[in-house]
Amino acid sequence: MSETLLSSRNLAFELYEVLDAEALTRRERFADHSRGTFDAALDTARSVAEKYFAPHNRKGDEEEPQYVDGAAQLIPEVKPAVEAFLEAGFHNATRDFEQGGMQLPTLLSQACFAHFQAANVGSAAYPFLTMGAANLIESFGSDAQKRRFLQPMIEGRFFGTMALTEPHAGSSLSDIRTRAEPADNGSYRIRGNKIFISGGDHPLGENIVHMVLAKLPDAPPGVKGISLFIVPKFLVNEDGSLGARNDVTLAGLFHKMGYRGTTSTALNFGDQGHCVGYLVGQPHHGLAYMFQMMNEARIGVGMGAVMLGYAGYLYALDYARQRPQGRLPDGKDASAPQVAIIQHPDVRRMLLAQKAYVEGAFDLALYAARLVDDSQTLADADERRAAGELLDLLTPVVKSWPSSHCLKANELAIQVLGGHGYTREYPVEQYYRDNRLNPIHEGTHGIQSLDLLGRKVGQNGGAALKQLTRLIQATCAEAAGHPALEPLRAPLEQLLGHLSTVTMALLGDLLQGEVNRGLANSALYLDAFGHAVIGWRWLEQAVRAQRGLDAGQAADADFYRGKLQAARYFLTWEVPACHHALSLLEARDDTCLTMADAWF
Amino acid sequence: MSETLLSSRNLAFELYEVLDAEALTRRERFADHSRGTFDAALDTARSVAEKYFAPHNRKGDEEEPQYVDGAAQLIPEVKPAVEAFLEAGFHNATRDFEQGGMQLPTLLSQACFAHFQAANVGSAAYPFLTMGAANLIESFGSDAQKRRFLQPMIEGRFFGTMALTEPHAGSSLSDIRTRAEPADNGSYRIRGNKIFISGGDHPLGENIVHMVLAKLPDAPPGVKGISLFIVPKFLVNEDGSLGARNDVTLAGLFHKMGYRGTTSTALNFGDQGHCVGYLVGQPHHGLAYMFQMMNEARIGVGMGAVMLGYAGYLYALDYARQRPQGRLPDGKDASAPQVAIIQHPDVRRMLLAQKAYVEGAFDLALYAARLVDDSQTLADADERRAAGELLDLLTPVVKSWPSSHCLKANELAIQVLGGHGYTREYPVEQYYRDNRLNPIHEGTHGIQSLDLLGRKVGQNGGAALKQLTRLIQATCAEAAGHPALEPLRAPLEQLLGHLSTVTMALLGDLLQGEVNRGLANSALYLDAFGHAVIGWRWLEQAVRAQRGLDAGQAADADFYRGKLQAARYFLTWEVPACHHALSLLEARDDTCLTMADAWF
Repeated sequence: MSETLLSSRNLAFELYEVLDAEALTRRERFADHSRGTFDAALDTARSVAEKYFAPHNRKGDEEEPQYVDGAAQLIPEVKPAVEAFLEAGFHNATRDFEQGGMQLPTLLSQACFAHFQAANVGSAAYPFLTMGAANLIESFGSDAQKRRFLQPMIEGRFFGTMALTEPHAGSSLSDIRTRAEPADNGSYRIRGNKIFISGGDHPLGENIVHMVLAKLPDAPPGVKGISLFIVPKFLVNEDGSLGARNDVTLAGLFHKMGYRGTTSTALNFGDQGHCVGYLVGQPHHGLAYMFQMMNEARIGVGMGAVMLGYAGYLYALDYARQRPQGRLPDGKDASAPQVAIIQHPDVRRMLLAQKAYVEGAFDLALYAARLVDDSQTLADADERRAAGELLDLLTPVVKSWPSSHCLKANELAIQVLGGHGYTREYPVEQYYRDNRLNPIHEGTHGIQSLDLLGRKVGQNGGAALKQLTRLIQATCAEAAGHPALEPLRAPLEQLLGHLSTVTMALLGDLLQGEVNRGLANSALYLDAFGHAVIGWRWLEQAVRAQRGLDAGQAADADFYRGKLQAARYFLTWEVPACHHALSLLEARDDTCLTMADAWF
Repeated sequence: MSETLLSSRNLAFELYEVLDAEALTRRERFADHSRGTFDAALDTARSVAEKYFAPHNRKGDEEEPQYVDGAAQLIPEVKPAVEAFLEAGFHNATRDFEQGGMQLPTLLSQACFAHFQAANVGSAAYPFLTMGAANLIESFGSDAQKRRFLQPMIEGRFFGTMALTEPHAGSSLSDIRTRAEPADNGSYRIRGNKIFISGGDHPLGENIVHMVLAKLPDAPPGVKGISLFIVPKFLVNEDGSLGARNDVTLAGLFHKMGYRGTTSTALNFGDQGHCVGYLVGQPHHGLAYMFQMMNEARIGVGMGAVMLGYAGYLYALDYARQRPQGRLPDGKDASAPQVAIIQHPDVRRMLLAQKAYVEGAFDLALYAARLVDDSQTLADADERRAAGELLDLLTPVVKSWPSSHCLKANELAIQVLGGHGYTREYPVEQYYRDNRLNPIHEGTHGIQSLDLLGRKVGQNGGAALKQLTRLIQATCAEAAGHPALEPLRAPLEQLLGHLSTVTMALLGDLLQGEVNRGLANSALYLDAFGHAVIGWRWLEQAVRAQRGLDAGQAADADFYRGKLQAARYFLTWEVPACHHALSLLEARDDTCLTMADAWF
């Protein structure tokens, strides 16, 4: 049977041939693990995802959450699916054994989660959001807060959200207006309105713990005046039992293009003046705390975008193999049987592009997860720090590149299916609609580009960028001289060289205070940088695939040849196409900057 | 008030400054027309579109047609809208005065139709499909057929469809299986199944006239064995009164991603064995006839794609001007007011790209309509033929380029609106979904690319291509030497030169029988060719805008400067990016061709 979520052969290639997951088992934290326990977790993820999540993916889209009497109602299939996820313990995949967790590396937990994102991103979001909120309390909450709010999340009884966006502020968090007034008992009274809060209401658990950004009365202006609060839907007594309903109101639901299974809510805090919140950590440090959650979330968004692209690719591939239509241009005999559409070069182009996008981005998302592990569990402190810095640099790419290119893969999947792809009788149009959220939430594409060029690239004297450059050069050195790999290496080195020149020039602008000029075309920079990174990951995959081929693993020869051909597609079709954008950056092209509002 | 359908200033620019619509009034057929009658028709189109079509655009999406008791039910708003369209006589816009038509040039009729496509493409499709069917009967039907089927269409009582696609054949028309057996009375008995028939059932008129492709018993194999039949939903008596229900059954409705207002139907012909059809023209010539309708339809699809992009652009532009959010990168004062998002360079980039795509494609679609007029009403027969040849060459571009790039514009419009753009509370996500059909129907993108490179470019010894090249060179010559235009001319000439080299090489392959090799990357060729054509149209617009500026029309200075800036965006950002694809074509890159099925 065809695989529908992801290719398990490709996953094994990533984990055991490219990213050396087994090496992690030699670290103390993962010493109880082995390839066997890893594979068992992956098998469970696949089977829970296939059995409980995939079957209602379309229904969750067709019958989106309803606002009934001030609450959000979901289709009945969501609850047993989420319960199966919790039952299997995936929400505690990386948590300590003592806490009841699986103590898995993040690399493995992300690989497990990927199955749920491919199967049903709308339902999977509920536990995913909860994990983010739980990790935030774990890192920055007090012991009492952990007992009352984190523990029930670990037990799968409470859910969580992150509540940042406000109607008038959107991406501009420094402009939020939600206020927190100190109350007598050390708690706070919260008042404000939030929108686009995913999972802001649902009937899946006993309680929902909102992680809310708000401003204290003495807050300095801007992002330095934002604090973080726990605001539960139901108050929680000292003994852990549920208290009264807190003053958090579901004001309404948004009706989205896709991703419909996840409630997107407008929440009012303190309409009645008695919304209770609890300060997390220090006053005015809320945004820094939230960034931990957002960085995790951005990697999660990247992987989610990959998996929607991946599911679409696998469906289109299967369809193209089954569906007969037409003949090749040189086949003039109209009475000859029709060929499968995968025989048409243009269909192959569309499939090869999808493969290059989704398998390239999948590798990057897993590589980022591996960096999380390295930043936490490498023996050497300097190496841990270096891994963290590289992860920081790559985060905007991990979030953005899959969000734009795996979306493009979804668009190509629709095209492969033609008229059928355009109907809701087939799944690919929903994958597109679901994926269209990813370039928007958790920081838009434009915001990620400012983060990359305006902050990450120059951080610590460019230390992370230098590290990345060395890693890319090392892969190029491995490829050098091999006849099959040499033609793939050259375009990557050319792009890297051009990118370095441009980076130095733009950082120069920023250093000289020419901020608007230097950042004017940051979106072009993000795209070119992303292509260099994905190009590197493809060359890395090609090196490993060639190694597999050279080792004469006959059963896998087709798999490895496909890898090499997709690498060739990406490195010779896509990578060289970036030079024009880099030239525009190099020339400080001001076409967009100088377009006056009145001229439109 | 902001305009929501299209910019009337831009339309006037196109008609009267770029395409010289007034010159048409000096031709005999249009002698009764003037700029005044043209503008009156456009005003009527705008007002009917705004009043009757735009208001239910969202509702038509939310409440899609329902299958009830073997018939398709529509929301009640469609019928009065279509009646207002018919009442105003737009379905007869180009028809002779004696037939009750407006005898307008196609240039003007397309400009009128554009308003309806922007307002509500789902409802507008019903009269548009009817016009296509009517024109087919007018060109190839017998006098009796015209009396019985065309005349009621002209009177607005009957509707029409084109019924080509079959479940097992899709784009491969040579494989259709619908059969037509001669009956005693000169009619035929039709038997077969068609899918994706737009407007295949609805309650808008007295009757629906299906133009059906089917094969006669003695048909040779392939496309040379296809005949065209009139198959009415209700039989029509000699006196024009309706007879019995014909044996055409609505088997079901497709549920689409967008374009939901238009029924997409599965039709069964002859389930009961008594489906009556009437042969149009000669046996086995059906596909040639149908191509007249398809060529018209392809221009219509191109314009429809433009207008969905256009409506999205105008909405995003208005939103970006109104919506405050954040500050520029150099604005460090968090207490300063937020700026309108149009101030952010990346938002300007997204708006400028949309403007470049939709106004460039709008110009091309109108230019193609002007070529229809030239091919029919120029005084000189050779010039008429030349215009027809050029139109033929450009048709795949007119269909495809807007379908891919104005769709991209819709994607950017969603991004400009951010989270709001992703909700169904705003119109832009629907524009994307509606537009996503356009690269699929009336010949997919891949099929258009084979038509362009495999047929059109080399036709008549490349006569049309030579004509196009001369026209582009003439525009370049007009731009040469002018300081503002010179930087725009150069990239176009470079692309044209590279394209010519590649074209010669690929045509050489085809002449030598290397068909699969020559056509392997035809989609890349279509994209590059399309960019050259749109680049030319932008240079043409820039020349006219510069003329307007030089004439010192102060009130229009902003408009002209916007045109020049959009031309600069397209010619310096987009046009030079095509060279890499041309290099792949030149090298006969076989990455897609050699990717084996088993390697995926």
